[in-house]
Amino acid sequence: MDSPPVLRRSTRRRSAAPPAPPEPTRGALTREAWTEAATEVLVDQGIDHVRVDVLSKQLGVTRGSFYWHFKDREELLRSVLQAWRERATEQLTQRLERARDDAHDQLRDVLSLPFRGRAARRGARIELAIRAWARRDELARHAVDEADAARIGYIAQIFSALGFPIAEARHRAFITYAHVVAESVMPGQGGPAALGQRQERTKLFEALMLASLGG
Amino acid sequence: MDSPPVLRRSTRRRSAAPPAPPEPTRGALTREAWTEAATEVLVDQGIDHVRVDVLSKQLGVTRGSFYWHFKDREELLRSVLQAWRERATEQLTQRLERARDDAHDQLRDVLSLPFRGRAARRGARIELAIRAWARRDELARHAVDEADAARIGYIAQIFSALGFPIAEARHRAFITYAHVVAESVMPGQGGPAALGQRQERTKLFEALMLASLGG
Repeated sequence: MDSPPVLRRSTRRRSAAPPAPPEPTRGALTREAWTEAATEVLVDQGIDHVRVDVLSKQLGVTRGSFYWHFKDREELLRSVLQAWRERATEQLTQRLERARDDAHDQLRDVLSLPFRGRAARRGARIELAIRAWARRDELARHAVDEADAARIGYIAQIFSALGFPIAEARHRAFITYAHVVAESVMPGQGGPAALGQRQERTKLFEALMLASLGG
Repeated sequence: MDSPPVLRRSTRRRSAAPPAPPEPTRGALTREAWTEAATEVLVDQGIDHVRVDVLSKQLGVTRGSFYWHFKDREELLRSVLQAWRERATEQLTQRLERARDDAHDQLRDVLSLPFRGRAARRGARIELAIRAWARRDELARHAVDEADAARIGYIAQIFSALGFPIAEARHRAFITYAHVVAESVMPGQGGPAALGQRQERTKLFEALMLASLGG
C-alpha cells in the first residue's frame, strides 16, 4: 500500500458556510493537497466517493476551506485529471528531452517503465482507477484519450528515428504501448511471475519491434 | 447502446418477506434473467449499484422473489462473474475445438476478435466494467486473473503449434493478448480510426508475431 500524502491539518476548525472560507483555513491546505487527497480516495474507493464532505472530514478541515481553492466538485475532478496527465506524460516527454540520443536506448527506456517498482505500481493503480472512471464520464475519458495519444505519439517518434515509415512507426508504437500497459496491469500473467521471465519476455518484445519485415 | 434483456415481469406482485418467496413469483424470473440484469446494472452504473432492492424495483418484482434463486447478493455477484467467464472463454475455446486445424488461421481468428462489431463492443464494455470492479474486489480479481490465464494459455497453444518453444510461445501469447485487449479498448488510438488503418496494423502485428528471430 502507498502511504497517504502528508497533509497539514488546520489547527483551528471552524464551521463556516461555503463559499466564504474563514481566514484561518485559508493557507492550511494547498490546492495540490486537496487534489492528492481526492486522487487517493479515487484509487481506494472509486469516483463516487470523491466528494467534498468526505474529503473535508478525512482531512479534518471544514467544507468551507475547500471552496477557497475550488469553485465546485467538478473543478476538483478536473484538477485530479490534470495532475495525472501531467505526471503520466511528463514521465515520457522528459525522457525525450534528456541527453539520450540513441533511439534504441529510448525504446528500452519505455519498455522498462513497468519494472520501476513502487512508483510503477502506484502509477498503475492511479491509471486503472482513472480508466474505470472514464468508462462512465466524458471528462475522464477525454483525459485518458489525450494521454494515450500523447504516449503513442512519443513512442512513434522513437520508431521514426529508428527508420520506420511514419504509418508503420505509429502501428509499432500502438503495439508497444499496448504491451507496456499490459505489463503494468497484468504482471502475473503469461508464465511464472518471476522477474527473470518478464525480462526475457521484454527482450523478445524488443527484438520483435526492431525486426523489419520483408526488405 | 445495447438493448436491455427481455424480462418477463410477474403479473401479480405481492410484498412477501424474504427468504420465503410467494408462489406466484416463483417462476417469473429465471436465475439467468437476474444475472443478466445485474450485469447490465454493473456496466451502466457500476458495482455499487448492483443491489437486490435496485434490481427488484427495476425488474418490477418483489425483493422476495430474488431469494428464490439466490441466497444473498454475493451469490448473485458470483453468478455474474461465472456467466462472464463462461461467455468470455468459450469464445476462444470453442474455436480451438472447431474444424480449423491450421494454426495460422487460428491466430488470425484471435486477432479478428476486436473487429466483430456490436458483439465485440458489448463484450468490451462488460469486460471493462468487470476489470474496474476487480480493482477493489478479491472475488472479481480472481475471475479476471483466471480468464486472462485461460485466454493466454489458449493463444500459447497456437504459437506452440506454429513451432515456437514453450516459453517463447507463452511470451508471444502474452504479447498477442495485450494487443487484442488494446484493440478492443482503445480502437481510436494510434492513428486514424478508419477500419483500413486498424486492419493494416493487425496485418503488421500478425507478421511480427510469426517472425522468428535469430535462427
